[in-house]
Amino acid sequence: MAIEGRSEGTRAGGPIRLGMVGGGQGAFIGGVHRMAARLDGEFQLVAGALSSDPERARRSGEELGLASERNYGSFAEMAKTEAARGDGIEAVAIVTPNHMHYPAAKAFLEAGIHVICDKPLTSTVADAEALAAAVRASGKLFILTHNYTGYPMIRQARAMIADGVLGKLRVVQAEYPQGWLTEKVEDTGAKQAVWRTDPAQSGAGGCIGDIGTHAYNLARFVTGLELESLAAELTSFVPGRRLDDNAQMMLRFKGGARGMLWASQVAPGNENSLRLRVYGEKGGLEWFQEDPNYLWFTPHGASRQRITRGGEGAGPAAARVTRVPSGHPEGYLEGFATIYAEAARAIRAARGGGKPAADVIYPTIADGVEGMRFIDAAVRSSRAGGAWTSL
Amino acid sequence: MAIEGRSEGTRAGGPIRLGMVGGGQGAFIGGVHRMAARLDGEFQLVAGALSSDPERARRSGEELGLASERNYGSFAEMAKTEAARGDGIEAVAIVTPNHMHYPAAKAFLEAGIHVICDKPLTSTVADAEALAAAVRASGKLFILTHNYTGYPMIRQARAMIADGVLGKLRVVQAEYPQGWLTEKVEDTGAKQAVWRTDPAQSGAGGCIGDIGTHAYNLARFVTGLELESLAAELTSFVPGRRLDDNAQMMLRFKGGARGMLWASQVAPGNENSLRLRVYGEKGGLEWFQEDPNYLWFTPHGASRQRITRGGEGAGPAAARVTRVPSGHPEGYLEGFATIYAEAARAIRAARGGGKPAADVIYPTIADGVEGMRFIDAAVRSSRAGGAWTSL
Amino acid sequence: MAIEGRSEGTRAGGPIRLGMVGGGQGAFIGGVHRMAARLDGEFQLVAGALSSDPERARRSGEELGLASERNYGSFAEMAKTEAARGDGIEAVAIVTPNHMHYPAAKAFLEAGIHVICDKPLTSTVADAEALAAAVRASGKLFILTHNYTGYPMIRQARAMIADGVLGKLRVVQAEYPQGWLTEKVEDTGAKQAVWRTDPAQSGAGGCIGDIGTHAYNLARFVTGLELESLAAELTSFVPGRRLDDNAQMMLRFKGGARGMLWASQVAPGNENSLRLRVYGEKGGLEWFQEDPNYLWFTPHGASRQRITRGGEGAGPAAARVTRVPSGHPEGYLEGFATIYAEAARAIRAARGGGKPAADVIYPTIADGVEGMRFIDAAVRSSRAGGAWTSL
Amino acid sequence: MAIEGRSEGTRAGGPIRLGMVGGGQGAFIGGVHRMAARLDGEFQLVAGALSSDPERARRSGEELGLASERNYGSFAEMAKTEAARGDGIEAVAIVTPNHMHYPAAKAFLEAGIHVICDKPLTSTVADAEALAAAVRASGKLFILTHNYTGYPMIRQARAMIADGVLGKLRVVQAEYPQGWLTEKVEDTGAKQAVWRTDPAQSGAGGCIGDIGTHAYNLARFVTGLELESLAAELTSFVPGRRLDDNAQMMLRFKGGARGMLWASQVAPGNENSLRLRVYGEKGGLEWFQEDPNYLWFTPHGASRQRITRGGEGAGPAAARVTRVPSGHPEGYLEGFATIYAEAARAIRAARGGGKPAADVIYPTIADGVEGMRFIDAAVRSSRAGGAWTSL
Repeated sequence: MAIEGRSEGTRAGGPIRLGMVGGGQGAFIGGVHRMAARLDGEFQLVAGALSSDPERARRSGEELGLASERNYGSFAEMAKTEAARGDGIEAVAIVTPNHMHYPAAKAFLEAGIHVICDKPLTSTVADAEALAAAVRASGKLFILTHNYTGYPMIRQARAMIADGVLGKLRVVQAEYPQGWLTEKVEDTGAKQAVWRTDPAQSGAGGCIGDIGTHAYNLARFVTGLELESLAAELTSFVPGRRLDDNAQMMLRFKGGARGMLWASQVAPGNENSLRLRVYGEKGGLEWFQEDPNYLWFTPHGASRQRITRGGEGAGPAAARVTRVPSGHPEGYLEGFATIYAEAARAIRAARGGGKPAADVIYPTIADGVEGMRFIDAAVRSSRAGGAWTSL
Repeated sequence: MAIEGRSEGTRAGGPIRLGMVGGGQGAFIGGVHRMAARLDGEFQLVAGALSSDPERARRSGEELGLASERNYGSFAEMAKTEAARGDGIEAVAIVTPNHMHYPAAKAFLEAGIHVICDKPLTSTVADAEALAAAVRASGKLFILTHNYTGYPMIRQARAMIADGVLGKLRVVQAEYPQGWLTEKVEDTGAKQAVWRTDPAQSGAGGCIGDIGTHAYNLARFVTGLELESLAAELTSFVPGRRLDDNAQMMLRFKGGARGMLWASQVAPGNENSLRLRVYGEKGGLEWFQEDPNYLWFTPHGASRQRITRGGEGAGPAAARVTRVPSGHPEGYLEGFATIYAEAARAIRAARGGGKPAADVIYPTIADGVEGMRFIDAAVRSSRAGGAWTSL
Repeated sequence: MAIEGRSEGTRAGGPIRLGMVGGGQGAFIGGVHRMAARLDGEFQLVAGALSSDPERARRSGEELGLASERNYGSFAEMAKTEAARGDGIEAVAIVTPNHMHYPAAKAFLEAGIHVICDKPLTSTVADAEALAAAVRASGKLFILTHNYTGYPMIRQARAMIADGVLGKLRVVQAEYPQGWLTEKVEDTGAKQAVWRTDPAQSGAGGCIGDIGTHAYNLARFVTGLELESLAAELTSFVPGRRLDDNAQMMLRFKGGARGMLWASQVAPGNENSLRLRVYGEKGGLEWFQEDPNYLWFTPHGASRQRITRGGEGAGPAAARVTRVPSGHPEGYLEGFATIYAEAARAIRAARGGGKPAADVIYPTIADGVEGMRFIDAAVRSSRAGGAWTSL
Repeated sequence: MAIEGRSEGTRAGGPIRLGMVGGGQGAFIGGVHRMAARLDGEFQLVAGALSSDPERARRSGEELGLASERNYGSFAEMAKTEAARGDGIEAVAIVTPNHMHYPAAKAFLEAGIHVICDKPLTSTVADAEALAAAVRASGKLFILTHNYTGYPMIRQARAMIADGVLGKLRVVQAEYPQGWLTEKVEDTGAKQAVWRTDPAQSGAGGCIGDIGTHAYNLARFVTGLELESLAAELTSFVPGRRLDDNAQMMLRFKGGARGMLWASQVAPGNENSLRLRVYGEKGGLEWFQEDPNYLWFTPHGASRQRITRGGEGAGPAAARVTRVPSGHPEGYLEGFATIYAEAARAIRAARGGGKPAADVIYPTIADGVEGMRFIDAAVRSSRAGGAWTSL
């Protein structure tokens, strides 16, 4: 039952020196990034600008054991100072609300530091395109943490489709319902709700930007299909809410496949019920994020089969991102950590001036721009009464 | 564990005399109707015109033990002859392909005989409206076998929503995927596939008419919502297929609720995967036809609960259509039989010139007309490039 | 999607004339037997002695529409009178509490009438053996309604094992937990609880006799294994309860397979959670009564597969007892009705003096005797402190 | 959705310096321990004796980046040398085959170093008792990695039972089936199979020691019940296998509760299907390791409820070991990491000469001794023909 051939990394050159922007006390996703970075032992957090509030930043860094001179009050100072150190950070994780992704990422890229950035890429398409230009100009790596792409069975699904196991694809059903915004919790001051429902911090999309992009990114990642156009209905069901809390849309993919996407934050009984179902001429695949170690595969004309992570039926694409044998579930943090592990492989290759191996896969700046165009098209379609809209 | 207070029917006046049109050898749904009619002992099949092919009709009737003089070669003859008998049929079950529903139903209504008819109501909206007029003119009962409305947990869901348990409704997600038409089986002569993919027998809708209407009817039945408009994409994925085999749409309900509906016959891994999910201000309900004895209920802010047919949490609306205690699953035939049991209650009341009790529920001619308008709107929307279209 | 080759019975000679003993007002299982007998149209209920209380018997028969002269006050009178009629019953269904099975069955067998009898066979081993002798002497058919053997996927599992798909069997895990006797409901007068917890009516086994026998019978039916010995712990958890409400045991089968069996009526959260799991040298099978349309099959070294009733992977043993296509669930009543359908095939063959076809399968008097020996061995083992005990 | 009040550890004094014995190249559980130790950032691996083969030990340590002078060829050398360093390890993780646990643990305890040790405790009861004496003599901490006790919903279940939510307990059903030893894979040289089926390395129990102890420990941990006696059947189904590969037993707990335990390595279709079900006078709880984020709770007389990790219904005992919000699954590594996190809390308290807080929970040396007595009793019972045997 050993997972053969999986190294904990060659430690040549030691762990990668990592900084973080955002993720201070009271934040959620920063802690997730830190656990993900630690799991495989590839990164060491050595610097941070952990909050836009300098005092909170300082206290947060102390709690994490950062050296005081690398516990910064602003990302700008951090980028400048670290770039000047001989042992400065090699990569930075940006885990702020969306509107800060662009300025922060730009600063580090210009300082010659690789960027690992939370999603969605930015809060506007214009920022996204400007950031893409900054990435190109810098020659640095940019890794977007669409973390669900790190789940082994998602890698398995992607490989099966690429190998033609489903034949030509016909139907793609993606959904990501949650229930936590059923009431107007942003009025209670709950930090996670406040910024997500604030257009100034989130951008023009609420639910569609926060989780709809995840569903969309996952559908593209697994199927390899490109979107041609969409027709969307974005709704704010909770009175007074400033951004959509429910998003429904139909999708036309290039080549003729058709899809639907539903994202919601007002569906009680759902926690993070991201689900992807793909059907082609030869079979179907179904996957559910809350039970991520199983991939359900039905070859047309045969029985439904349960492929398990690490078990029979799972191939090399899953195996290379699998940490423990089948039957012992891996979860959200492991999938997230795989994005960091892939980033580490790419960064180590870059240390030597090389390219990562062909099987290193992570969401890129291009995926981020595509995601922003998706949000933008959905918002435009909805404002046009649900009209079909090209990306 | 006894189901209290459920009678097998007062047999006053004996079982209801039933005839059948269609459902001869090689048919599928006719046998289902006969089992449904028999289960509760309320009906006795005494006459039939079981096929449009007179010789097949005769053989089929013999096999079922019909008396030879009531084993008819055509429905017209049957309507006329039975109406003239002192012991003629009281009700007829029409289980032909869609395009024959209208002429057959009309003939029996005009002969003063109650009609139980399979869905969809007809093959055109015009026929549907003409049939509605015929029902009104006849004063006879018309029961449409949208059989899924007979499942106890569907009755439970409907009652909970009517009682306000979910509060104002926001989101309705309905789907009915199948996989059996993934290949062009109609070319192999498979009877069930041939007529369903033939516009002359099915009407303008393929998948949307065959199973999309079920999903739509179920959504309306459970929620009580009325549809305002829809935007639909109907696709024929299998080359050469003459009707849609995949239907996707967004729904705007009166009062502001939003929905999506997906029906497919090209989704391998799905058999009859009808699923309904409804979310409101106070909670959510989820139900799956392949596991119909469970209703999943989540009050917002509390744990998800499994309400079981006959078990704790199930109320009188479910109990009155429940036959066996909780934990012993009831299935498709029981749900179908409930439509017959409700029909029997109505017919017995009509025997005495009365009305059925208020809790007798079955899909009516109005539901059938609504269903045809739904199909028509979906076809029109799709032909208009997926434009929003009113019913 | 038609179920090919399934007839609703050749009606030659008309339906089988059926009587019933027990099953009057307030009973549970009687109504189940009647629905099961009606579903396929093979039986007609024409006589009854529906209660040991003559007045209740009369009222019950009236409600069911029995002719008054065939609505009997006692089974003895019924056996005698019906045997003398030219159109007397051909078979009787015995649905009383256990202790009455023997005298009633004996009376009808001696009157030359086939017997369909509920389980367990009797309330003592002595009665069981006497009844077996009566069956042999009569030359009549005896069908025991271990109804779970009628589920299509149980037939499928049995056929797969008989065909060697699992190889030599090693481990058999059977369980049947319920929760409804968690409190002392027999003190509230609940009819179903009262007789089941009364040794005079149930015999020496409570839970073990009521549902443990079902689990045991199912294990034997599916595996074909014979039990060598068992070690049992029977417990009455509810203070003052006179029979066991929880039964746990280990099983040694002839040939070396090992098993466990658990039956309980004090396990809240379980309704009729009968589950069977069988493992052999080449693979495993798992089945759950509350979701009976699925059989989970894992060939060793391959992925777990879901075989569905009527779907891919299901063979002829399941198909011949399948009524509706895959994806439309069949439940408890359909499985129960299959026992009646098999009985009908046997009775029709006997009408002509013949034997039923080789594929007609139903639990026999031998299974009933075996079941009583199982209960007896479990009670003896438990009284001996859980010692290993031969059947 | 933030997990409030969860710190990533106060880094006062820096991370805990950790050594490891075993876990070199080709091993499985060593890598798991290292990931678990890293996840929360509380430990730093600084020394190792990673294999009993000195050359393999050296290579393994290099791969992990150990300094060469702390990359030891034997545990004895490591214990002695580290104890003498000013910056020597504070704790050691022992992840060898079972028979080496005792000598290694003893060496480190005597050197004044805390021990984190894999399960089962040792390979004999005598060793276990000697080790317990060594722990007492040393005054050092001893943490046994019965990792399943780290799952949040297991903590939740334990707290609910301790709070009396189920009332007095009646029935405990524990099982841990696997299928991976269905064939004689030890003959292929598969490392994980070879030592587990070798009495010299594993001790007298095969399946019972490897996974039966996990099921037993979990049952005790959750219920708080103490075992009085057991009757066991241990079987070696695979011809030529030297230890049991299937274990079945009945359990009598002090106070009257009854249970069953099944562990198997020859049940195809099961990966790590550890399942625990507990029933009491007031309700039932069910949990399944392959879907560990859900706890199913049924109060008697109410609907079954799904309590989710981090979601509604989950209390403080789960919350303090929860890392990410509900709906994002945590898995095996997170549960394992919780044992390390608890160990870290205890070690940090010990640094200051104090005791850990009352809510710090981990399996202790006493649990390890109890587990060895359980294995021993099971082996004795089985050798005595399945006789009831006291611990």
